[in-house]
Amino acid sequence: MIKLLLALHSFDRIPRAGFLLRGVTEPESLAAHSHALALLVCLVAPKCSPPVNVLDAARMALIHDLPEAMTMDIPMPVGGAAFRKAKTEEEIAIFGGIFNGQDGEWKDLFLKFQEGSCPEAALVRGLDKVQMMIKVLGYEREGRGRLEEFWQHKENFRDYGIPVVKELFDDIFRTAGRKRPPE
Amino acid sequence: MIKLLLALHSFDRIPRAGFLLRGVTEPESLAAHSHALALLVCLVAPKCSPPVNVLDAARMALIHDLPEAMTMDIPMPVGGAAFRKAKTEEEIAIFGGIFNGQDGEWKDLFLKFQEGSCPEAALVRGLDKVQMMIKVLGYEREGRGRLEEFWQHKENFRDYGIPVVKELFDDIFRTAGRKRPPE
Amino acid sequence: MIKLLLALHSFDRIPRAGFLLRGVTEPESLAAHSHALALLVCLVAPKCSPPVNVLDAARMALIHDLPEAMTMDIPMPVGGAAFRKAKTEEEIAIFGGIFNGQDGEWKDLFLKFQEGSCPEAALVRGLDKVQMMIKVLGYEREGRGRLEEFWQHKENFRDYGIPVVKELFDDIFRTAGRKRPPE
Amino acid sequence: MIKLLLALHSFDRIPRAGFLLRGVTEPESLAAHSHALALLVCLVAPKCSPPVNVLDAARMALIHDLPEAMTMDIPMPVGGAAFRKAKTEEEIAIFGGIFNGQDGEWKDLFLKFQEGSCPEAALVRGLDKVQMMIKVLGYEREGRGRLEEFWQHKENFRDYGIPVVKELFDDIFRTAGRKRPPE
Amino acid sequence: MIKLLLALHSFDRIPRAGFLLRGVTEPESLAAHSHALALLVCLVAPKCSPPVNVLDAARMALIHDLPEAMTMDIPMPVGGAAFRKAKTEEEIAIFGGIFNGQDGEWKDLFLKFQEGSCPEAALVRGLDKVQMMIKVLGYEREGRGRLEEFWQHKENFRDYGIPVVKELFDDIFRTAGRKRPPE
Amino acid sequence: MIKLLLALHSFDRIPRAGFLLRGVTEPESLAAHSHALALLVCLVAPKCSPPVNVLDAARMALIHDLPEAMTMDIPMPVGGAAFRKAKTEEEIAIFGGIFNGQDGEWKDLFLKFQEGSCPEAALVRGLDKVQMMIKVLGYEREGRGRLEEFWQHKENFRDYGIPVVKELFDDIFRTAGRKRPPE
Repeated sequence: MIKLLLALHSFDRIPRAGFLLRGVTEPESLAAHSHALALLVCLVAPKCSPPVNVLDAARMALIHDLPEAMTMDIPMPVGGAAFRKAKTEEEIAIFGGIFNGQDGEWKDLFLKFQEGSCPEAALVRGLDKVQMMIKVLGYEREGRGRLEEFWQHKENFRDYGIPVVKELFDDIFRTAGRKRPPE
Repeated sequence: MIKLLLALHSFDRIPRAGFLLRGVTEPESLAAHSHALALLVCLVAPKCSPPVNVLDAARMALIHDLPEAMTMDIPMPVGGAAFRKAKTEEEIAIFGGIFNGQDGEWKDLFLKFQEGSCPEAALVRGLDKVQMMIKVLGYEREGRGRLEEFWQHKENFRDYGIPVVKELFDDIFRTAGRKRPPE
Repeated sequence: MIKLLLALHSFDRIPRAGFLLRGVTEPESLAAHSHALALLVCLVAPKCSPPVNVLDAARMALIHDLPEAMTMDIPMPVGGAAFRKAKTEEEIAIFGGIFNGQDGEWKDLFLKFQEGSCPEAALVRGLDKVQMMIKVLGYEREGRGRLEEFWQHKENFRDYGIPVVKELFDDIFRTAGRKRPPE
Repeated sequence: MIKLLLALHSFDRIPRAGFLLRGVTEPESLAAHSHALALLVCLVAPKCSPPVNVLDAARMALIHDLPEAMTMDIPMPVGGAAFRKAKTEEEIAIFGGIFNGQDGEWKDLFLKFQEGSCPEAALVRGLDKVQMMIKVLGYEREGRGRLEEFWQHKENFRDYGIPVVKELFDDIFRTAGRKRPPE
Repeated sequence: MIKLLLALHSFDRIPRAGFLLRGVTEPESLAAHSHALALLVCLVAPKCSPPVNVLDAARMALIHDLPEAMTMDIPMPVGGAAFRKAKTEEEIAIFGGIFNGQDGEWKDLFLKFQEGSCPEAALVRGLDKVQMMIKVLGYEREGRGRLEEFWQHKENFRDYGIPVVKELFDDIFRTAGRKRPPE
Repeated sequence: MIKLLLALHSFDRIPRAGFLLRGVTEPESLAAHSHALALLVCLVAPKCSPPVNVLDAARMALIHDLPEAMTMDIPMPVGGAAFRKAKTEEEIAIFGGIFNGQDGEWKDLFLKFQEGSCPEAALVRGLDKVQMMIKVLGYEREGRGRLEEFWQHKENFRDYGIPVVKELFDDIFRTAGRKRPPE
């Protein structure tokens, strides 16, 4: 356990690349992003219908970026399919190394998140973008960075067919005073 | 929901006071601390006997410092009993404000953590110190800060009578190559 | 003396909470704030009528935030009356600890500032806000942070009935191109 | 030209991952690394025998990390062969995008560096590690980070059969007061 | 060589003063500036007519600010002629100290740059400002700092009679959507 | 007044060059240094015999580095006599510009400090080094930077023949567990 947490010691100093590269100074770290996402998951998951396993979703949120404690954050939408695939495989291997000796359940959760197939993974993936766009809202209010691009990139508003996620994106556009671009 | 997360927008830039004040540069933020603690809780809680509610413990970890998004982190062991009591009351009020409109369960969880009575709260409080001491280990290896004091302060090793927490403290001393001070 | 200054060693790394929480990156430290305030006091105090003790006012400015070297900066307007009162008592105790062994005059100056009764304390308290609002002006010109709130909060423009302070607030509004809100 | 430099605008804020992850605060940026490497190349290249093209080598140094302005720095020795290969292909594509419209010679230089076949590329690759280890020396003198690992990793001292590079590694070990591990 | 690079170890942490003083947080370092300038020189120099020595120009770019590793960056337009002259003499002495034991050619290049007489020096001096103004463009897009002053200061657009430099300044004004002030 | 403080707006972000260049991350700013010095002056000045004007000494401390808000901090012992002289003249001119419109007394105080002749100036100059060495003590305890050089440079312990300053240097050596080098 000690070893596992020490392996993640620098996770709180790795900047979210997408924000750093767009001029946000003192940007959110991967650890802080994972915290906000896990909290959001715990708030939203109980409202899903059909119900999802809240603890599984929360745990996915807590671990979804951990391998980047070794690779650093690689920003979207960089990279072709081949690069993305190799990166995913690399991350699965790294995750396996970090969680070596822990319950196998953790590796299953990480794999499920990577595949994005189960309802919990879909929810966490949708909320991953919700958290990001709320952060964009926060930075824009503070005059930090050049973030227009985030609003143009459709992938940032993918709701995975989950109504509560869709509503959150609607709220975000409303709060920002922006019109949601047509599908 | 958007409003709640925007209220916590700066949580990722508030430094852990205890580390900052002892010369750790680029110290862990409150958000990063909460992430590491929640992860640790999810790893350790299933090993508790009698069993604890893992999701409740994880949620406590995610929210336990949130009011400090308004008050900033106030380092231990500063403050007499009166100040600590007033601070706790203030934090409960702030938490209520932030989670206004959310399920009442959240306020219950926060109160239970403050009281420290239920098994989940005791676990999270014990692991709060475990996470802190692992962080100290990590900083010491990197030559960051003057952290000797952390090892002298008994409150930093309180295990709340939970065997798995006690073992973690033993491991920490072993990893540090230090002898645990006699009770 | 050495011990006293070492106790304040981290004072230059404690960020002003009000600025940090509103998205100002690399915000003023408590030490820098205290420097600017002391300088402002030395410039303004000689213009007061009836005259004030300039050295006493300058010394108050230099020490008014020192206990926060232990508690970190707790931002206004957080906290109810009970919390504020407990905080003040705590700060007086901390100050006593830091200045233990120094001339008792220093503790008197700190107490007088906390009470805010004598003319010097009133002047320093008024200029504390003047300095803060000039800093807001500076940050706004540089596009740093979301500081509108500062202009709405009446307490930020309290002049304690001192004409020279009132004039400075008038100047600040003029420089900002803003209208002063009616009393 | 303007577009090209604007595309690299954030290059000066991307931290060298290997240093960040080992606890070096305020680590060298990719831009600063590239500057030091280019300077080193200009100092060393004229001493090579058989002679190398100094300008080509200098230009390779200036551009060798530019695609990481998009991907961020991915630290060694992370990643299996497949990941590294995909990353290289990605970087070549990104470089092509950035230098689109510039003389084709630049893409040739970048490819040659990636292949590492020509004498200039071998020199720059060797000096890339020389510069890194001098940086390690500098950080260790300042007590910044946990860098022991750098001295254990043989790849960090690969001289590509170039005598002047080998001598520099010898000098580095001498300056550090360390013994070079046997091949 | 090792000694020379260690002497420049802090060059990557010295902020460009002109940006820092105008509220740009996390500003470009001297090392990053020198990297971008050297790259720009390598891109532009081959287009000069009559031709210039590209390698000499690149080397000038790499070293032009090195003495400021000792003196820190002193911002323009501070300082009268006497101060500037004394500063230049000081920098030449410092440069001589750093490059002591290296080929005398380096000192010649540094002197030539200081004098600004040869075509390579004129090109590097012109591009020094081009790089700076592109940086201003980048910061302005990100809402960082108060940079209007840069556009008003004619010295920032001096092209030394070199057509390709003049065109770059024209491009910069075009990209910024600004009108170039009449000579 | 507003204009004067706005001119000094960046004073709190200018790092003390001597610390930055020796690897101290997040070093003291000029503003923080000036605060600590002014406080130290107020604590020590009343103990001087023959008595000094405490307010004058405090004001000198508050302003002694202000022109560096324009020039940035230039570290000692860089620079020959000619450079130092030109720098002093430049700073006097800058100070005059900043304090234009203020009571002439301020310019007198600044000149007196530069000349170092009057007892107040001697005291402030001595304590300037005392504050610096206490800072060195603090950084060394925290493992920040490579500061040995500070202890070797005799100018750092010049007491200007003032007993109370001499005693402070003695205390500093005692606290550091170092022997004072023979005169």
